[in-house]
Amino acid sequence: MKLQFKKNDLTNAINIVSKAVPSKTTMSILECILLDASNGKIQLIGNDTEFGIETVCEGTIVESGKVAIEAKIFSEIIRRLPETQDMQVTIETDNRNNTIITCENSVFKIAGRDGNEFTALPKIDKTQSVSLSQFTLKQIISQTIFSIAMNDNNKKMTGELFEIKDDTLTVTSLDGHRISIRQVKLNKSYDTAKAIVPGKALNELVKILSGGIYDELVVYFSKNHIMFEFNNTLVVSRLIDGEYFHVAQMLSEDYETKIVVNRKNLLDCLDRSTIFVRDNDKQPLVLKIEENVMGLKITTDLGTMDAEVAIKKIGNDLMIGFNPKFLVDALRNIEDEEISIYMSIPRSPCFIRDDDKTYNYMILPVNFNSDTV
Amino acid sequence: MKLQFKKNDLTNAINIVSKAVPSKTTMSILECILLDASNGKIQLIGNDTEFGIETVCEGTIVESGKVAIEAKIFSEIIRRLPETQDMQVTIETDNRNNTIITCENSVFKIAGRDGNEFTALPKIDKTQSVSLSQFTLKQIISQTIFSIAMNDNNKKMTGELFEIKDDTLTVTSLDGHRISIRQVKLNKSYDTAKAIVPGKALNELVKILSGGIYDELVVYFSKNHIMFEFNNTLVVSRLIDGEYFHVAQMLSEDYETKIVVNRKNLLDCLDRSTIFVRDNDKQPLVLKIEENVMGLKITTDLGTMDAEVAIKKIGNDLMIGFNPKFLVDALRNIEDEEISIYMSIPRSPCFIRDDDKTYNYMILPVNFNSDTV
Repeated sequence: MKLQFKKNDLTNAINIVSKAVPSKTTMSILECILLDASNGKIQLIGNDTEFGIETVCEGTIVESGKVAIEAKIFSEIIRRLPETQDMQVTIETDNRNNTIITCENSVFKIAGRDGNEFTALPKIDKTQSVSLSQFTLKQIISQTIFSIAMNDNNKKMTGELFEIKDDTLTVTSLDGHRISIRQVKLNKSYDTAKAIVPGKALNELVKILSGGIYDELVVYFSKNHIMFEFNNTLVVSRLIDGEYFHVAQMLSEDYETKIVVNRKNLLDCLDRSTIFVRDNDKQPLVLKIEENVMGLKITTDLGTMDAEVAIKKIGNDLMIGFNPKFLVDALRNIEDEEISIYMSIPRSPCFIRDDDKTYNYMILPVNFNSDTV
Repeated sequence: MKLQFKKNDLTNAINIVSKAVPSKTTMSILECILLDASNGKIQLIGNDTEFGIETVCEGTIVESGKVAIEAKIFSEIIRRLPETQDMQVTIETDNRNNTIITCENSVFKIAGRDGNEFTALPKIDKTQSVSLSQFTLKQIISQTIFSIAMNDNNKKMTGELFEIKDDTLTVTSLDGHRISIRQVKLNKSYDTAKAIVPGKALNELVKILSGGIYDELVVYFSKNHIMFEFNNTLVVSRLIDGEYFHVAQMLSEDYETKIVVNRKNLLDCLDRSTIFVRDNDKQPLVLKIEENVMGLKITTDLGTMDAEVAIKKIGNDLMIGFNPKFLVDALRNIEDEEISIYMSIPRSPCFIRDDDKTYNYMILPVNFNSDTV
């Protein structure tokens, strides 16, 4: 095999597929990037078997072939080559997979591995697909992914539900304390589809999406996989098995108390209150909702904070406690200047949602001892 | 005690003295910042007993007094107050050291501690002092501190020698593999002085120096301490006991081979060769010095790099091996476009120095097996 690249093209391709290369694994071949120039184009592939990325890289095939190269070393070598962006890089292998990377006056020799040992990406059925912009997908994932569960106790909580119904894409995540739901309108109606996508894959996907409003992307739904296609790149993830939680049952439109508040002001106060919250700390921030003003009070072993925020209130006065970090997460992912929060009683969740339901964040309250506030 | 500050003044003062607050200690009072307004000015002090910082903060003393406040909480509270820079912050204590921090609509209550429990900074004799710019001191420390030893096996190697002789300040560090020496001319002659200053204190000092060419600084040398005075701030460090290594004996002006080389070109090549060096790896980078060209070759378990750099050579051809990371460290801390490297035989150190001896970096070579190159 002999290939020629511009340094910059190769760097970009390596950065993209590296996102799917596991850092530790028992199968050392998975720590490699496959460089495949056996089909008339140059493909780079990273694959941790759950999640894989394939991208096509510009370059010249002088002699076709394929080789697997340890991702870290490969990436470090290319990154440290001379900085001129169109610097030419040549990669050559012999029939024992010895790989020679040449650029200007530097020659690197590393041991490559047989490209046929590398696990190919699964073939995905392309019959069911949805188009949207990279911007939209990046947004909708970022604005919900914070409330997936971190630990594996309940596998389904570590993923996000992607749901297509008519012309709407809904993404949902929940971790047992809160639910985050985002909806976007698509350019047309599609067949119904549902998939629980692992959070890990989505976190990596977000890093390589351009975020451009006019950069199109196609999502393919198949029985066991989801695939995202954009910019000559395919991202494939295995799905999480089973049926997702019945979220609709946990939502409610009724409320006894509604407040309208400046998002930035409230967020700043909430953020300050988290100073006194350590991990595993159960002390809630208590909101005291009255006419025109909401008091915020938290008391932990570390100290006490008291603050006030101006609000518009509709309905009853209310005292209710929350983990302030959960409120912070939701408010950080909303762009509206003013937000509405809907509540009922101290033991019922609050809902932060807009009228169009483009977002709906549910957060469970925390009991508090009313003697201490 | 009752004090009023502009948020920005207080933030800056906390950031400065926090550098001397140990993160873990058996004496919890040392994890505090002392706020001392008992002498007609407001002083903040951090002190880990080896190393302390005191700074004067602008503000109004409504009622004098002092209190020690846990540094992390204090710093977090102030940092998250509303962002307007001249936002007013009030700090008030009662006679049980309960501390109330008020800013706009937020009130924080934390448990302070008796300011008299806090260890004061040592009083330093101010008879022997040297003036220089913050820029110069910051430079000279940064350009040598990388070659102090990381572990405590030899205490003296964890510090830097500060030496005043006539109108010259010399700073020296060594770790058993290399020596770094920097010299600067002072504005006048001073009495001779010597001090081994702990690297930890210097690393923190560098972070709070402005680096301004016209920002003056005074260094005081006393028997057991060194003190740096600048911008209403005092930084005091205990010295490392004993006599420093006799570095002059390890230096030599003789050479058999001298090369002159573009620093940036060589640095880029050296940097690339470190890809193949893992910690505890003993494989050297072998330099092959010939007329007009220097070959660089490294072979480790990870792979091989071959490169060439154009040089001007005076004297003999030479093959000599080095840990490329040590060469990288030295070259990164030189600004000259062209540098000279002086060598003798494969078992003798190299010296990277300029004609004025403003810098002199000595690096010991590493044996290599000449069969493998």
